[in-house]
Amino acid sequence: MTREDVTRTIAARRVELGLTWQSLADAVDRPVVWTTAALLGQHPIPRPEAEVLLEKLGLSPDLVPILGAVPVRGTDRDVVRNDPTIYRLYEALAVYGPALKELIHEQFGDGIMSAINFSVDIDKKPHPSGDRVVITLDGKFLPYDWVSAD
Amino acid sequence: MTREDVTRTIAARRVELGLTWQSLADAVDRPVVWTTAALLGQHPIPRPEAEVLLEKLGLSPDLVPILGAVPVRGTDRDVVRNDPTIYRLYEALAVYGPALKELIHEQFGDGIMSAINFSVDIDKKPHPSGDRVVITLDGKFLPYDWVSAD
Amino acid sequence: MTREDVTRTIAARRVELGLTWQSLADAVDRPVVWTTAALLGQHPIPRPEAEVLLEKLGLSPDLVPILGAVPVRGTDRDVVRNDPTIYRLYEALAVYGPALKELIHEQFGDGIMSAINFSVDIDKKPHPSGDRVVITLDGKFLPYDWVSAD
Amino acid sequence: MTREDVTRTIAARRVELGLTWQSLADAVDRPVVWTTAALLGQHPIPRPEAEVLLEKLGLSPDLVPILGAVPVRGTDRDVVRNDPTIYRLYEALAVYGPALKELIHEQFGDGIMSAINFSVDIDKKPHPSGDRVVITLDGKFLPYDWVSAD
Amino acid sequence: MTREDVTRTIAARRVELGLTWQSLADAVDRPVVWTTAALLGQHPIPRPEAEVLLEKLGLSPDLVPILGAVPVRGTDRDVVRNDPTIYRLYEALAVYGPALKELIHEQFGDGIMSAINFSVDIDKKPHPSGDRVVITLDGKFLPYDWVSAD
Amino acid sequence: MTREDVTRTIAARRVELGLTWQSLADAVDRPVVWTTAALLGQHPIPRPEAEVLLEKLGLSPDLVPILGAVPVRGTDRDVVRNDPTIYRLYEALAVYGPALKELIHEQFGDGIMSAINFSVDIDKKPHPSGDRVVITLDGKFLPYDWVSAD
Amino acid sequence: MTREDVTRTIAARRVELGLTWQSLADAVDRPVVWTTAALLGQHPIPRPEAEVLLEKLGLSPDLVPILGAVPVRGTDRDVVRNDPTIYRLYEALAVYGPALKELIHEQFGDGIMSAINFSVDIDKKPHPSGDRVVITLDGKFLPYDWVSAD
Amino acid sequence: MTREDVTRTIAARRVELGLTWQSLADAVDRPVVWTTAALLGQHPIPRPEAEVLLEKLGLSPDLVPILGAVPVRGTDRDVVRNDPTIYRLYEALAVYGPALKELIHEQFGDGIMSAINFSVDIDKKPHPSGDRVVITLDGKFLPYDWVSAD
Amino acid sequence: MTREDVTRTIAARRVELGLTWQSLADAVDRPVVWTTAALLGQHPIPRPEAEVLLEKLGLSPDLVPILGAVPVRGTDRDVVRNDPTIYRLYEALAVYGPALKELIHEQFGDGIMSAINFSVDIDKKPHPSGDRVVITLDGKFLPYDWVSAD
Amino acid sequence: MTREDVTRTIAARRVELGLTWQSLADAVDRPVVWTTAALLGQHPIPRPEAEVLLEKLGLSPDLVPILGAVPVRGTDRDVVRNDPTIYRLYEALAVYGPALKELIHEQFGDGIMSAINFSVDIDKKPHPSGDRVVITLDGKFLPYDWVSAD
Repeated sequence: MTREDVTRTIAARRVELGLTWQSLADAVDRPVVWTTAALLGQHPIPRPEAEVLLEKLGLSPDLVPILGAVPVRGTDRDVVRNDPTIYRLYEALAVYGPALKELIHEQFGDGIMSAINFSVDIDKKPHPSGDRVVITLDGKFLPYDWVSAD
Repeated sequence: MTREDVTRTIAARRVELGLTWQSLADAVDRPVVWTTAALLGQHPIPRPEAEVLLEKLGLSPDLVPILGAVPVRGTDRDVVRNDPTIYRLYEALAVYGPALKELIHEQFGDGIMSAINFSVDIDKKPHPSGDRVVITLDGKFLPYDWVSAD
Repeated sequence: MTREDVTRTIAARRVELGLTWQSLADAVDRPVVWTTAALLGQHPIPRPEAEVLLEKLGLSPDLVPILGAVPVRGTDRDVVRNDPTIYRLYEALAVYGPALKELIHEQFGDGIMSAINFSVDIDKKPHPSGDRVVITLDGKFLPYDWVSAD
Repeated sequence: MTREDVTRTIAARRVELGLTWQSLADAVDRPVVWTTAALLGQHPIPRPEAEVLLEKLGLSPDLVPILGAVPVRGTDRDVVRNDPTIYRLYEALAVYGPALKELIHEQFGDGIMSAINFSVDIDKKPHPSGDRVVITLDGKFLPYDWVSAD
Repeated sequence: MTREDVTRTIAARRVELGLTWQSLADAVDRPVVWTTAALLGQHPIPRPEAEVLLEKLGLSPDLVPILGAVPVRGTDRDVVRNDPTIYRLYEALAVYGPALKELIHEQFGDGIMSAINFSVDIDKKPHPSGDRVVITLDGKFLPYDWVSAD
Repeated sequence: MTREDVTRTIAARRVELGLTWQSLADAVDRPVVWTTAALLGQHPIPRPEAEVLLEKLGLSPDLVPILGAVPVRGTDRDVVRNDPTIYRLYEALAVYGPALKELIHEQFGDGIMSAINFSVDIDKKPHPSGDRVVITLDGKFLPYDWVSAD
Repeated sequence: MTREDVTRTIAARRVELGLTWQSLADAVDRPVVWTTAALLGQHPIPRPEAEVLLEKLGLSPDLVPILGAVPVRGTDRDVVRNDPTIYRLYEALAVYGPALKELIHEQFGDGIMSAINFSVDIDKKPHPSGDRVVITLDGKFLPYDWVSAD
Repeated sequence: MTREDVTRTIAARRVELGLTWQSLADAVDRPVVWTTAALLGQHPIPRPEAEVLLEKLGLSPDLVPILGAVPVRGTDRDVVRNDPTIYRLYEALAVYGPALKELIHEQFGDGIMSAINFSVDIDKKPHPSGDRVVITLDGKFLPYDWVSAD
Repeated sequence: MTREDVTRTIAARRVELGLTWQSLADAVDRPVVWTTAALLGQHPIPRPEAEVLLEKLGLSPDLVPILGAVPVRGTDRDVVRNDPTIYRLYEALAVYGPALKELIHEQFGDGIMSAINFSVDIDKKPHPSGDRVVITLDGKFLPYDWVSAD
Repeated sequence: MTREDVTRTIAARRVELGLTWQSLADAVDRPVVWTTAALLGQHPIPRPEAEVLLEKLGLSPDLVPILGAVPVRGTDRDVVRNDPTIYRLYEALAVYGPALKELIHEQFGDGIMSAINFSVDIDKKPHPSGDRVVITLDGKFLPYDWVSAD
């Protein structure tokens, strides 16, 4: 059984049992975006969390080592380009990406926002003209730095 | 002269004059991400702001109507995929996009985060292990809603 | 079982039983384009409608939760580019898309026609030189609006 | 001078002179979508209309033959995929295209909606929850028909 | 069972039984290109023809409704580009396509050759320097015509 | 000056002078598809024909050697996929290509229709339901034949 | 069973039995490149050869008709671009292809080297600085020739 | 001036002056495929050869250093895929590439035919059924060998 | 069973048994990068090593011949572009590739670093600001050399 | 003038003046890979180094601000895939990338080798069987770490 098989099983079982992602995150006391991404196959899941999550989903503890291995990450590009909900995030990047690059350089210097030392949060915020989705990308600034081991 | 020509001219002139994006935003009292994106060709710029910005950049007011027209938006995909600073944003989307989709649906129902009724902010936040880039995507939730004009 | 599996099963069963899309739409009193798109995997189907539709198709009510989850939307691009019937819609877009963009901006200002607060209708209209397919895309205008939660 | 050069010149001149597409369409008494698409290089423009339009735009009548030749049609795919306003039309097609195909077949039989014997209209319609863009695609149904010349 | 499955079964069975496409076309008294294309999944096959063809191929009449539904048409592009026999047709189009476009416009005006009101024929013609494949594409001319339903 | 430059010049000049492709073909007594394709850059043009054609187009005889060299052939794929008139030919290939392959093999054996020992003709044929474009592809059959020089 | 299935079975069985391609070619007294390509699914295999080869591979004679049908030819492009051994052939083409085109035209006139009336040979030749792979592509010259059936 | 500019100039000048590639190769006493490829921008040209070639082409000796620098090699893929003469070489690779890979491994072991320690030759050979193009690819076998510097 | 199947089985079994790549490399006394790559399907594995590795993984010795055959090499490009850990290596190449090309030419002359007579090593080196991954690519320089067999 | 224009000018001028990359690196006392990459447009160049380099290349000090701005990084993918010298690096990645990923995870845990806190070195090392190119990629290990600003 590969990680992809396990991911598909988890996704189907969650819908069947009517469990929310939040309840799964709460069960392991981890941030909800991390937990959801991990269950969708983007992060290794440590043994204790894996045991709890598999139990809640009614799946065999034999899957613990598979969930614990570092996965091949990333989403099929067609999904990113086709699904309207994910696409809006891509569109924001297409419209504002170069501006964000300029401002990272202006405020921090030459470098990048890490996507590894990184967290994402999502919030629902009320607003007179309708609820808002607020997504926060929060990554360590890494300056271009020409370093070598010795 | 097309908008693309004007964008290239503005970009070159800004570097030459050593003006920061922030100073340009301040001059028109607009958010810095909006101003930068607009000067990079992603938004029409209203006449009063266009006049001020062109003057600060030492460019002719004849360009006002070109800046005022709605542009063709979007970034060349090769740039999104190649430049490391922009790529990290894309990578975050490839890793966390499906999780964000799931959580938008769980917290708001079926729909999307608008990228039109939308703003982006970027902040520099200190942290014991190094400064962090914090990017906030803030869009109105739009529920899938089957409406027709009559 | 994934949503894709269910979609394939529904499509095959409908042909087998000789049911029209219209009859399925009538059974749940929903617009026919919405019903067809939903059965083809593009919308979640609420429990009451799902129960009726599955019964008409002679399929198990166990599939209700799968039909109720928000799906990953979108069509394989090769299908859009290859099938002549779908391709004509794409061709219309390739020829008239930029003109429609210009006119949306001229009539409404900077913004988009929503594809979320949106409906589609299809009609058969007689004409001396032959029946015509009339497709109406009807979406709320969303002005570009720089709003933030706080 | 190629048609592309003429198109670029027309687009720039229109912005400069502040002419609306509607006023150009009115000047030649043609539908506004047709006129806009034609000026954007998608249709040949007959001599009388070409002469009027070039005069309104302050351009030389020498361009009449170039406007009169049948152009190579179609939009750069990157524009279709990147610009948010045009993209929404593509997204509607990605979500509803297969449903429209099914319903064309159900209502008309095997065949297509012509994109040649075809017109497009755009309307602004008021609605309690906000103005709506209503785009009508109107094409002759062409049944698959195995005909040969003799 | 999907149409693709049925197509694969038909193709395998035909080879096994050593039946020619011509004999299948003769059995239903239809043009051989139409019959071959239809059995390869490109056209719906009416009930009477489907019954005859399935019987000749020793397949179950239960497949009649699947053959009768309008299929998703088109060939995988990799096949078009890779198989030398099909590729030669594509090459002819790459070399002569723009010339044919010019001549359609010169002889008929602005418009297209329909691929729907259309037939294809293939013939073997003797020639002193070797037999020739003669393929005739025969489609109704459709002038660009801006028509609407009302 | 490259062949592409010459092709562009010829195309523009022909429109300017209002010359038909047929009249150019007649001037050199060559088939019209060959002449059009050659002037669009797909074939070398022998000196005598080149001299006549350049004179009719009012262009310098210095271009004779450029027209005489074997060109890099082929059409930009985006044009093939985007322009509706050329696209219909591609669509016919996508729908009927595999059937034509099968029938070439059935009638001639394993091999291809040459696109080199080849001609194309286009005809306008009347038909009760409207004029038809008849395109004839006529190529020598080349059997797969494992031959070597010695 | 499709030809692809048979090809996979043959490939696996050959490794299992430890048979060389040369021994298979010898068994049917055919050139080794032809035999290998044919067993890899690129050529139909006549009945007598097919019977011998299947017997040597310990496979059922029922596969004879499948091996005898003309296959869909060509290699997955990703394989051509990814596998280093095949890629070197592609690289040679990328570096020397245009030069070979020029020299074919200089030595033979306008036309191509046939890949149908064609053979390939591979040899191992000693050289002081190391053994050399010598691949000979040997195809009939086909002049561009505008011929038609009548 | 870049190497690409020089290549274009050389190509145009050669046609203008009516020089054959062979005569240019003879002038520098180098193999004709090497010389043609080098003049088409695929190899650096040593000073003495560069001086002779530029003189024969009537170009300035100032270009010597540009011809002497190692170029960025490779051909635009669209050219490889579109031009029929070059495409046949690609097709041979698509049909016979995997067979050649198998036979290189069978005759030499695991490794590749070098495209660097490599030469190409082209010959015209008579044959009863028509002249043949014989292209010889001749490269050193390089075994996969896990070696490191220390 | 194909090599891909065996690779998948090995990967799953290794995780299940909790074996490190290093322990597998030690068991056959081979470099760890070579062993890992070979088990991931990139190199043939000689009989003695294959026997040991299969035993440690608890897999059948029947797989020895499959592991011993030369595989089709290379990684799916989507994996290279999507997985962040592999992508960083690609990014380094995108940023520094042209510089490395220039310096290979400056230090060695015209040619390449072989990827066949080649080894890779990976090391963990401490550094005051954090452990470093040090990857060494070590390949024989191959000068462009126009050699032929005779 | 854009950075791309400056890069092209620098590249041409270096060849003209016959300056080595090493001599340019020595002039600013920086590592040669960094200097070459920077001059090829991949890094901003600080004022003092820019002044020295421009002077050595005989270019105007007015270009200092352009060299000092953070560039859009990355190489055209066609170059990476086509040029044999750069391609070998890509091939090494295609063959060994997944193995390196596995070993980074085994030796360091879940994370990546930074390409930002990173250096590259290239060395010429003698070896009995021929000089070797040794390229060292040296990047800080960054563990996946879910951190947020507050």
